[in-house]
Amino acid sequence: MSGAIEELTADEIDAFLAGQIVGRVGCHTDGVTYVVPVIYAYSEGCVHVYTVEGRKVEMMRRNPSVCFEVDEYDVDGRGGWRSVIVQGEYEELDGPEAQQVLELLGARFADRSEGGSERRSRGGGRAAVAFRIRVASATGRAVHR
Amino acid sequence: MSGAIEELTADEIDAFLAGQIVGRVGCHTDGVTYVVPVIYAYSEGCVHVYTVEGRKVEMMRRNPSVCFEVDEYDVDGRGGWRSVIVQGEYEELDGPEAQQVLELLGARFADRSEGGSERRSRGGGRAAVAFRIRVASATGRAVHR
Repeated sequence: MSGAIEELTADEIDAFLAGQIVGRVGCHTDGVTYVVPVIYAYSEGCVHVYTVEGRKVEMMRRNPSVCFEVDEYDVDGRGGWRSVIVQGEYEELDGPEAQQVLELLGARFADRSEGGSERRSRGGGRAAVAFRIRVASATGRAVHR
Repeated sequence: MSGAIEELTADEIDAFLAGQIVGRVGCHTDGVTYVVPVIYAYSEGCVHVYTVEGRKVEMMRRNPSVCFEVDEYDVDGRGGWRSVIVQGEYEELDGPEAQQVLELLGARFADRSEGGSERRSRGGGRAAVAFRIRVASATGRAVHR
């Protein structure tokens, strides 16, 4: 674990958020912290997610101040890593804005056969929920080996 | 995002925690939730980490009820994933117990040239901190495509 830690610039943070696929939402209610992975698309200063009703959505509705984290390990095959940690606000979306989230995710994952129409089918009958996390502040770090 | 979500068994959760390298600690103080990646070794129902003084350690000292999350995406090249979410308690270690954490991590990463002696050198002069998160409860999910 040698190697100096570098702070990422705002542009590097943006590029990293735009380039990754999986991030983790951290939320908190009633003394319990909950961290859960989500597939997301980053656009215009917001993390966009399409999911289903469940624990994380219930918690974020009650406490919309959330953390969002993305990391990449062993980028260089030698143990280097990058991570970005965001503080932001949960905003639930419906109507045209929810549709836009599906389109964003569809465009982001077009080459992975994970378009919007497929997304609608999961969740075992639970209601779909579209939301964004508006980035209020973000820090990023990297270690190159 | 089609594909049924399966709950992992206790044995599958244990095996997944033992097999992964990077997890995320979620902690909370003063209305702020913080999610940060860590390299860890899992042993005897605890997640072991060797790090340096900083924000996450300060927060966990003040509020030791933490979340720990591990995920793996695209396991099968078709968008399948697995994740485990742990609720547990932060326990700071020193003396022989801190040394044991170094040994655990050294053994875990022996094939990655990341042994204990190297770990001591990072952190820009900040004091080293060894801790474990004792798993109180854990859930795991998987989607196969």
